[in-house]
Amino acid sequence: MQSLEELQRIRVPQFEEVLGKPFPILDDGFVRVIDYMGSDEAVVQAARVSYGKGTRKVSEDRMLIRYLMRHRHTTPFEMCEIKLHLRVPMDCWRQWIRHRTASVNEYSTRYSIAIDASQTTPPDGWRLQATQNKQGSSGFLDPETGRRLSDQEKELQDLARKVYNDRIATGIAREQARKDLPLSTYTEAYWKIDLSNLLHFLSLRMEANAQYEIRRYAETIGNEIVRLWCPHSWEAFHDYVLHAVTFSADELQVLSAMLAGGADGAFRAAGELEWLETKDGRLRQNYERAEFEEKLKRQGIAVPWGEDAQAVV
Amino acid sequence: MQSLEELQRIRVPQFEEVLGKPFPILDDGFVRVIDYMGSDEAVVQAARVSYGKGTRKVSEDRMLIRYLMRHRHTTPFEMCEIKLHLRVPMDCWRQWIRHRTASVNEYSTRYSIAIDASQTTPPDGWRLQATQNKQGSSGFLDPETGRRLSDQEKELQDLARKVYNDRIATGIAREQARKDLPLSTYTEAYWKIDLSNLLHFLSLRMEANAQYEIRRYAETIGNEIVRLWCPHSWEAFHDYVLHAVTFSADELQVLSAMLAGGADGAFRAAGELEWLETKDGRLRQNYERAEFEEKLKRQGIAVPWGEDAQAVV
Amino acid sequence: MQSLEELQRIRVPQFEEVLGKPFPILDDGFVRVIDYMGSDEAVVQAARVSYGKGTRKVSEDRMLIRYLMRHRHTTPFEMCEIKLHLRVPMDCWRQWIRHRTASVNEYSTRYSIAIDASQTTPPDGWRLQATQNKQGSSGFLDPETGRRLSDQEKELQDLARKVYNDRIATGIAREQARKDLPLSTYTEAYWKIDLSNLLHFLSLRMEANAQYEIRRYAETIGNEIVRLWCPHSWEAFHDYVLHAVTFSADELQVLSAMLAGGADGAFRAAGELEWLETKDGRLRQNYERAEFEEKLKRQGIAVPWGEDAQAVV
Amino acid sequence: MQSLEELQRIRVPQFEEVLGKPFPILDDGFVRVIDYMGSDEAVVQAARVSYGKGTRKVSEDRMLIRYLMRHRHTTPFEMCEIKLHLRVPMDCWRQWIRHRTASVNEYSTRYSIAIDASQTTPPDGWRLQATQNKQGSSGFLDPETGRRLSDQEKELQDLARKVYNDRIATGIAREQARKDLPLSTYTEAYWKIDLSNLLHFLSLRMEANAQYEIRRYAETIGNEIVRLWCPHSWEAFHDYVLHAVTFSADELQVLSAMLAGGADGAFRAAGELEWLETKDGRLRQNYERAEFEEKLKRQGIAVPWGEDAQAVV
Repeated sequence: MQSLEELQRIRVPQFEEVLGKPFPILDDGFVRVIDYMGSDEAVVQAARVSYGKGTRKVSEDRMLIRYLMRHRHTTPFEMCEIKLHLRVPMDCWRQWIRHRTASVNEYSTRYSIAIDASQTTPPDGWRLQATQNKQGSSGFLDPETGRRLSDQEKELQDLARKVYNDRIATGIAREQARKDLPLSTYTEAYWKIDLSNLLHFLSLRMEANAQYEIRRYAETIGNEIVRLWCPHSWEAFHDYVLHAVTFSADELQVLSAMLAGGADGAFRAAGELEWLETKDGRLRQNYERAEFEEKLKRQGIAVPWGEDAQAVV
Repeated sequence: MQSLEELQRIRVPQFEEVLGKPFPILDDGFVRVIDYMGSDEAVVQAARVSYGKGTRKVSEDRMLIRYLMRHRHTTPFEMCEIKLHLRVPMDCWRQWIRHRTASVNEYSTRYSIAIDASQTTPPDGWRLQATQNKQGSSGFLDPETGRRLSDQEKELQDLARKVYNDRIATGIAREQARKDLPLSTYTEAYWKIDLSNLLHFLSLRMEANAQYEIRRYAETIGNEIVRLWCPHSWEAFHDYVLHAVTFSADELQVLSAMLAGGADGAFRAAGELEWLETKDGRLRQNYERAEFEEKLKRQGIAVPWGEDAQAVV
Repeated sequence: MQSLEELQRIRVPQFEEVLGKPFPILDDGFVRVIDYMGSDEAVVQAARVSYGKGTRKVSEDRMLIRYLMRHRHTTPFEMCEIKLHLRVPMDCWRQWIRHRTASVNEYSTRYSIAIDASQTTPPDGWRLQATQNKQGSSGFLDPETGRRLSDQEKELQDLARKVYNDRIATGIAREQARKDLPLSTYTEAYWKIDLSNLLHFLSLRMEANAQYEIRRYAETIGNEIVRLWCPHSWEAFHDYVLHAVTFSADELQVLSAMLAGGADGAFRAAGELEWLETKDGRLRQNYERAEFEEKLKRQGIAVPWGEDAQAVV
Repeated sequence: MQSLEELQRIRVPQFEEVLGKPFPILDDGFVRVIDYMGSDEAVVQAARVSYGKGTRKVSEDRMLIRYLMRHRHTTPFEMCEIKLHLRVPMDCWRQWIRHRTASVNEYSTRYSIAIDASQTTPPDGWRLQATQNKQGSSGFLDPETGRRLSDQEKELQDLARKVYNDRIATGIAREQARKDLPLSTYTEAYWKIDLSNLLHFLSLRMEANAQYEIRRYAETIGNEIVRLWCPHSWEAFHDYVLHAVTFSADELQVLSAMLAGGADGAFRAAGELEWLETKDGRLRQNYERAEFEEKLKRQGIAVPWGEDAQAVV
C-alpha cells in the first residue's frame, strides 16, 4: 500500500488566503470558508488506497481525478470536507436544508433575537412568472410598477419587525415572537459537507432551473471557492457534469439517425417515437421532443425538422 | 433460517382504520397516516433473521422487542416504515426538517399558490420568555395584553397575504412573490420515515424542552399513531427511552453514596464534585447539581442537601 | 391540496403474487420480496403534493413519472419502499453493503452457526483477468484447467468447514470460530430500501463493469421485481438512466462537428482535444477518445477516424 | 453573530505529532490518523453560531461542551472531522462497515492482489463460547488444545493463500480468485467520519459486549486518538455517555423505593414488577431484574434481595 512515515496535513496555501473572507451575495448575504480538510491531493490519495500500488504507474493526478469523475467513482471525493459560514434569507435556506448530507448549525431564534435584516428587492428586481416552466421566472416587471412593489415590501417588512420587537418588549418568548417574521429574514449557519455531496448540490443548484437566489450562492461556492480549493476536481466536474449532456434511449435513436443519414432518417426515427404528430398542420406540443431540441440548440446543432416546425410548437 | 413459503404482507387491521383520517393539531394543522409497512411483527421477523433459528425458542415477541429496545439494537426497528401527511406552520417545519433521516415531498410554493392559512394565536396563548432556560417559554401573558398582540398578529398576517396576492395578480413569479410570507404560514408535506428514526425524532420532540408547536405534533404521532401501529415497540420505547433516566458518572457517585449511607455520604460525594460551593452562605449556581436535583424530584426522591439549599440556587 | 377522505393502502395485486417467492441466483443464492409500500401510484401521489392542485390537469401518471425521472426529481421515488430477503456470498455482500442508504438485518454468525454453504465454481466458470480493465474479467479458462481449480476449491472449502466445525465442537466462541471461513460462504439478510436509492444501486450494479455476481442479483431485482412492482418507474429508468448516454463537454464538441460537417470537422475537433496524437504512425492510447469510440459503437455510429485507426490503439 | 475577520485553520499542535503514526492493534493491524478538521474549539464555535452572541457571557468552553454532550446537542460535534487509515481483518471490517455515517475507501482486491496477511491466533488466544450471552465469549481454551487449533489455523490459512496464488498464476481474474480467502485476511481502508458519529461508534464498540477485535480498535481510537484530538469532548463523552447508566421506568421505581425506605420498599416495588417470582424456592430467571442487579453491582451498590437470591438465578 503506502509507506507509513509521518504525515503533514494536506494544505492548499492559495486557498487559505480566502479563509474567513466573506463573498457577498444578494443584498445582505454572504458565504465564507471557515475550515477545510483535504484537496485534490486527498482525492488521489484515497483512490490509491482503493487501487493499491497498481495505480502508481498510471498517469498523474489530474488524469486520475478526471477518470474518477467520469466513471462516477464518487467515494474518493468524499475524502475532502469543507465548512462554510452562510448568511442567507430563510426562504432560500428552506431549499438549501433539503440537502440531507451536510452538517448544520443554524443561528437559533429560540435562543437569540432574530437577525434584523430581510432580503429586499429593488424596483427592477421583480421577476415575472414563467409560462412554460410552472416553477420558474422569466423576465422582469417594468421598474415603475416594481417601485410600487418595493415600497409595499418595505412597508410589510417594517411592520413585521415592529411587531416582532413589540412582542419581545412585552416579554413574549423568542420562540413564539418570531412566528410572523417574513421568509425573507436573514439567517446564518455553519454548513459542513464533503466534496462529493457538495458537487451534487452544485449540479442541482447551479442549473438554469434553480431559483435565482440559491443559484447565486451555488455559483459563488463553485466558481470562487471550489475552483480555488480543488482545481482539478472542479475542472473535471465542469467537463463531465456541469457541461455534459445526457441523451435518453429515445434521443439516441434520433441522434444516431441524424449522424447516419441526415434529415430523412431523423424524421423517420422521430416519427416512430410519435414526436412529430401534428394538429391543424402544426406540430403538437411534446415535452420530450422540445427537450431534445433544446439540447441540440445549446450545442449549436440544427433541429432536423426545422426552425419553423419548432416555432410552431 | 426460515422456511421460504409464500408470504402475505404484514397488516395491522385496527391501525388501518385511521388511514387517511386527519388528527387535528394547533388551529389548522393535522397529521394523517397515508401508508405503512410492517409492524411489531416485522421487528421480530428481522431480529430473527439476525439471530437465526436460535431465537425461536426464546420467549415471545413482546419480550424480544423489549430486549432490542433496551439494548439499543435499533436495526430491526428500521424494518417498519410509515408515511404521514402533515399540515404544519413553516416555522415548525423549519425545526422538523432538521431530522435528516426521512423522505420528504413538500407542497411547492414555486409551483403553486401558497396555502392561504397562518397559525394564529388566541389572546390567552402568548407564552412568556423563560428566564432559566434561554430557549424556552414559561407561563402566559395576561389575556388583556394578549388581545392586543392577537389583533396585531391578524393585522400583520392580513397585510402579508394582501401583498402576496397583489404580487401574484401583478404577474410576479410565485417563487419570488412568497418571499415575505410570515413563518406562521401553513405548509403541507408527505413525510416518510422508519420506526427507529421516528422514535428518535419523538424522543427529542416529545421532551419538555421541545417547542410547544412541534411537541404537539410529536405527542399526537406517538400517542395516537405509533401506539396503535406498533403497540409493543411503543410500550418498550415508553419504558426504556421516554421515561428512562440517565445518570452521569458523577451523578452515580452521589446516588451510590445516597444508597449506601444517606445524607452524610451524599454530602461528601457532592462536595468532592464541587457541587456544594457556597457564596454568602448560599449554594452557588451549578448546572450539573441542578439537573441532578431535577431528576431526583421527578422521581419523588428527596434532595439530600435539602429543599432550602435548593431554593437558594 | 387533496381531499382528506379515508384511504386504503396502495396495493399492486399482480406483484403480491411473488411475495415470499425465492428467485434463485448463482448456485445457492436467492432474492425474495418480503414486503413493500407504495408503487407508481405513490410516486404520483407524492409529486402531486409537491405541485399542488395545479398538476391535476397535467397529463397522466406515466408522463408525470417520466418527467420526474428525466429531470432528476428523485424525492417522489423515495416514497416507495421494498424489503427483500437475500442469500448471497459474503464476498458479494461486501460490495453490496457499501450502499449506505438501506436498512439491514444480517444473519449473525456471532449468535448462530454459520450457514453451511459456499459459492462453488463449475470447471467452465473460471473467469480470466481482463487486461484492459484492471478491475474486470474477460473470457473463461479452458474447462480442463478449470476442473483442477474446481477440485482445489472444493478441497479448500471442505477443510475450512471442517476446521470451523472442529472449533465449534471444541467450545470456541462462534464469533471467533468463524474467522477463517471463506469469503464465498453464504450469508442472508433483510435489506430494505426506497425506490430512488434502489434505482441508484441498480444503475451502478447492472453496469457491464459491475462484478458478475452482484450484477446477477441486480438484474434479477430490476427485471423481475421492480419491473413488476413499479412498471412506469422501471420503464422511465430504463429509458432515461440505464440506456441513456452522457457526453462530456469535450465529446459534445466532436459530436457537434460530426453532425455539422462530417469527418473533416470531427477530425479537427478531436485534434484540438489532442485525441489524435500519433506515435510511429499509430494513434496513441487515449482513454477519453477510447470511451467516446465505445459510446459511438454501442449506438451503431461509425467512428470518424476509422476502424483502422481504432484497431491500432 | 461573530466578526468576520480573516481566519486561521483550527490546529491542535500536540495532536499533529501523531499524524501518520500507526497505533498497532491485534497481530498485524493498525490505526493511523491521516488528517483532521476542527477540535474542541470548533465545537464551541459552532454552538455559538446557534446560540448567537448571547452565549459569549456563558462560562467557558469546557462547560459549554459538557452541556452540549449532556443534553444530546449533537450537531456541534459534527463540525469536527477525522480521517483514519485502518488495517483490519475482513471479519472485523464486516462489523465496522455497518456504521453507515462514514466515508470509506477500501483497498480493492478486484484491482490489486489481496494483502498477504491474515489474523492469527496464539495457542492461549482461543476464546470460549459464553453461555449466558449467546453472542459473546467468556474465558479461554487451555493452551494445549489451543496449540492444536493454532496449528490447524495455520494449515488452513496457508492452503487458502496457496490456492489464491495458484489462481492468480493461472490467470484467473482477481475479483474471482479472492472468493475463498479467509475472513481473517487483512484489508486496509481510509475511514472518514465526524466526531459526533465517531463517538456513537465508540459508544457501541467500546462496550463490554462488542467483539474483542473491534473493541480493541475502538479503544485505541478513543483513548489514544480522540482523547488527544478533542480532550474536552472526550472527557464529556466519558462522563455522560461511556460511564453513564440509564435506568428504565421500572428500574427507577425500585431505585426510588430503595432510596426512600430500604429493602422492604424495594422488595415491594420489585414484586409488583414480577421480578421476584420463584420456582422451587428460588428466583426465576428474569432478564430485566438481572440487568438491574448488574447495574447496581457495577456501582458497588448492594442488591436489596441479597447475594444469595442473585446466586440462585
